Amino acid sequence: MTETTFGYVTAENLPLFTDLYELRMMQGYYNQEHNPKATFSLFVRDLPPNRGYMVAAGLEQAIHYIETLSFGERTLEFLNEHGFDEEFLSHLAELAFTGEVRAMPEGTLAFANEPLLEVTAPIMQAQLLETVLINQIGFQSLIATKASRMRDVIDREGDGQQLVDFGSRRAHGTDAGMKAARAAYIGGFDGTSNVAAGEAFGVPISGTMAHSWIQSFEHEREAFETFVDEYGDESVLLIDTYDTVNGATVAADVAETNDVDLRGVRLDSGDLAALSRSVDEVLPGVDQFISSGVDEYAIHEFFERDGVGAGFGPGTALVTSTDAPKVEGVYKLVAVERDGRMEPTMKLSTGKVTYPGAKRVRRLESDGQYAGDVVGLRGEQLPGDSGEDVLQTVIEGGDRVLELPDVETIRTTASTHRQKLPERHRRLDDPEPYDVRIGDRLQSETSELERALESRIRDE
Amino acid sequence: MTETTFGYVTAENLPLFTDLYELRMMQGYYNQEHNPKATFSLFVRDLPPNRGYMVAAGLEQAIHYIETLSFGERTLEFLNEHGFDEEFLSHLAELAFTGEVRAMPEGTLAFANEPLLEVTAPIMQAQLLETVLINQIGFQSLIATKASRMRDVIDREGDGQQLVDFGSRRAHGTDAGMKAARAAYIGGFDGTSNVAAGEAFGVPISGTMAHSWIQSFEHEREAFETFVDEYGDESVLLIDTYDTVNGATVAADVAETNDVDLRGVRLDSGDLAALSRSVDEVLPGVDQFISSGVDEYAIHEFFERDGVGAGFGPGTALVTSTDAPKVEGVYKLVAVERDGRMEPTMKLSTGKVTYPGAKRVRRLESDGQYAGDVVGLRGEQLPGDSGEDVLQTVIEGGDRVLELPDVETIRTTASTHRQKLPERHRRLDDPEPYDVRIGDRLQSETSELERALESRIRDE
Repeated sequence: MTETTFGYVTAENLPLFTDLYELRMMQGYYNQEHNPKATFSLFVRDLPPNRGYMVAAGLEQAIHYIETLSFGERTLEFLNEHGFDEEFLSHLAELAFTGEVRAMPEGTLAFANEPLLEVTAPIMQAQLLETVLINQIGFQSLIATKASRMRDVIDREGDGQQLVDFGSRRAHGTDAGMKAARAAYIGGFDGTSNVAAGEAFGVPISGTMAHSWIQSFEHEREAFETFVDEYGDESVLLIDTYDTVNGATVAADVAETNDVDLRGVRLDSGDLAALSRSVDEVLPGVDQFISSGVDEYAIHEFFERDGVGAGFGPGTALVTSTDAPKVEGVYKLVAVERDGRMEPTMKLSTGKVTYPGAKRVRRLESDGQYAGDVVGLRGEQLPGDSGEDVLQTVIEGGDRVLELPDVETIRTTASTHRQKLPERHRRLDDPEPYDVRIGDRLQSETSELERALESRIRDE
Repeated sequence: MTETTFGYVTAENLPLFTDLYELRMMQGYYNQEHNPKATFSLFVRDLPPNRGYMVAAGLEQAIHYIETLSFGERTLEFLNEHGFDEEFLSHLAELAFTGEVRAMPEGTLAFANEPLLEVTAPIMQAQLLETVLINQIGFQSLIATKASRMRDVIDREGDGQQLVDFGSRRAHGTDAGMKAARAAYIGGFDGTSNVAAGEAFGVPISGTMAHSWIQSFEHEREAFETFVDEYGDESVLLIDTYDTVNGATVAADVAETNDVDLRGVRLDSGDLAALSRSVDEVLPGVDQFISSGVDEYAIHEFFERDGVGAGFGPGTALVTSTDAPKVEGVYKLVAVERDGRMEPTMKLSTGKVTYPGAKRVRRLESDGQYAGDVVGLRGEQLPGDSGEDVLQTVIEGGDRVLELPDVETIRTTASTHRQKLPERHRRLDDPEPYDVRIGDRLQSETSELERALESRIRDE
């Protein structure tokens, strides 16, 4: 019988999670003895629609990948079968990262054209990392941002309601389920239903019951009774299987008969704001958890319509960021060593500028609020004494020089930083663009390089 | 220094990739000695927008998960720390799947309200599977469908152009990158750039070069020369780094000077249809690969505008299914054993019907074309002598009874089946809904159960 496979990605095959062209270029660099030091910059050219900011996330996974990258037998055998040279593969077997990584700490706000991360290393090493770095940082930042928008609506309009990620089943594969749970927590969620994510990242886990529990008994009452017999005061009863308000009545009765203080009830269908008000009459003071079709817009509407809820369980809309499911992270070569010095480089492309050179980012503040960023060349003098440098050095000479914070700390960072961003940049729709200026030297260097490249093309 | 973690999902922790409530319900079922046989049905209530069909995919991974599911020490320890009973955990340590799985073979077309998969097993076992089954089958079906739409446009309007998945960096995490590559191949792609997916699933891999290769040299010409020196006739040169048409001229010159027959050139920006026509004048007969912003709509437009291309490399739009990034797969309890017989069960919910009972699906044909489906109860007599039963038994009594086909076979199935679907159901926009009828007995059983449940609520 043919063996079925799950297609796990583990430390063993993660080095192959890269585009074939990276490895083909690496072999070319190697055989042609062209392995200059290079700086690649990871950034987004545009924020996703209706996003006034992003929350940087995924750095911990990116760093883990860089630090543990190693081609073992399984990967080398496969590459050998696919036409790579023995000599190159011997070199690959010895490969370890020896370069530098600078990055925005997780939880930091990020804007268009600002590096989320920069790698400086021999081009063979730096090239290879592209696929995983964009994949991990792009996705987690996308979800942390979506989560942050939900927490922000609650901060402004709600009453500290709980937010729990219920999306694993609808995430794009298992890694998305795991990383969405982590990123949502960073963005301001209180937990996840995904047990594996709890185990891997220390995100608090929580869970109630499904309709199947109710339906597996002949009567809803029996289902509730059995559950409170098992879980007592911890019980959150799902009350919408047959009729939500009737379910609330049965729940109230079961709680009273069994002398149980319900932790809460869950509503998963129907007109949730209206139903929650009715349920509140039947079960005054009992926490209601709302879990169908929840996103930042639905939460806003729920509050507008005077819904009564102690918590929300967003699923699909959170983990797929349905209204904006992609963030087009790029990882561009911005500088390369020539004759012993790092020279800025760029692609000429209609409509999309890539600023050359390794960079720094200053975040200006005024009255405790963010007042605009300046992106400049790494050595460039920038305005803003009150601002801080956003990029930090994480790895230097292949060694870690910065301890990464735990998720609790990152979550606090995300919350603090979000509150420093003026509200007009945080609106759910059409937020006002935050000011990201290009430093004078970077600007002039960009124009100069552009002209030089254009004239070179004319001359060829 | 704090240890960084990637958060891999492997056989070791996949059992924890489930919502906490599944495990809490399992413990409740166990302790309350309520473990009836149950049938769960996995289906979608609605096809995603502008989808006239879906291509079922992900079954191999679902089956692997079910067959290998086993709680080891690492998982049990974590659950123990999170309040689960010792006795229940001892039982969990022994858990293995003993039930039945029936499913649509991969590559089969699927429509709303048709089971993609049904599990019949003691409820403790069947319940647990929900999260991973929806996650794997939902995502792969979503991407196989997106890919199938691109292949379909080429079948109708093109000339057998190649399709290669370039999306791994923009996929939602690593598992999405892997499974998108597999699903795209099933849907009609020719390969992927993702090396790890090639290794795991036998999907052909391919790759060219990136802008960084070009930029790492001082002159484009030198970059091309070095590459053809390394790869000769295999070379696909990326020509849009500075100016596409100029790049084509340099490529032509380098090919001639070095006596190389280029495998092709790649265009990654600008007005691709127009540029490809200009490039074709400079490099007549050389294959052009198009790789920016490609989806089924862009391919259609490219053909409409007389673009010249031998292949496309869709990325973000493919792997995130950007225009329809979610498919809301559900896994619903449809029957449960009571007094020794399987009784149909359903949730009452405004606006969304869940048909009760284990099911069968007949696919009718007329003149070699699909002519409508009928969904009935499993034992129900259905019309359509010429039709076939869509669901197949894969696992029975915990044992595999069906060999799963390899990806090549699945890919052929998907292609053959798609061609049997009348074109009006395959339009890119507003496809005509394919006829899915509900069998008479299923319909009357549904109405009867609905009435019974409603009257029970009134009486309570």
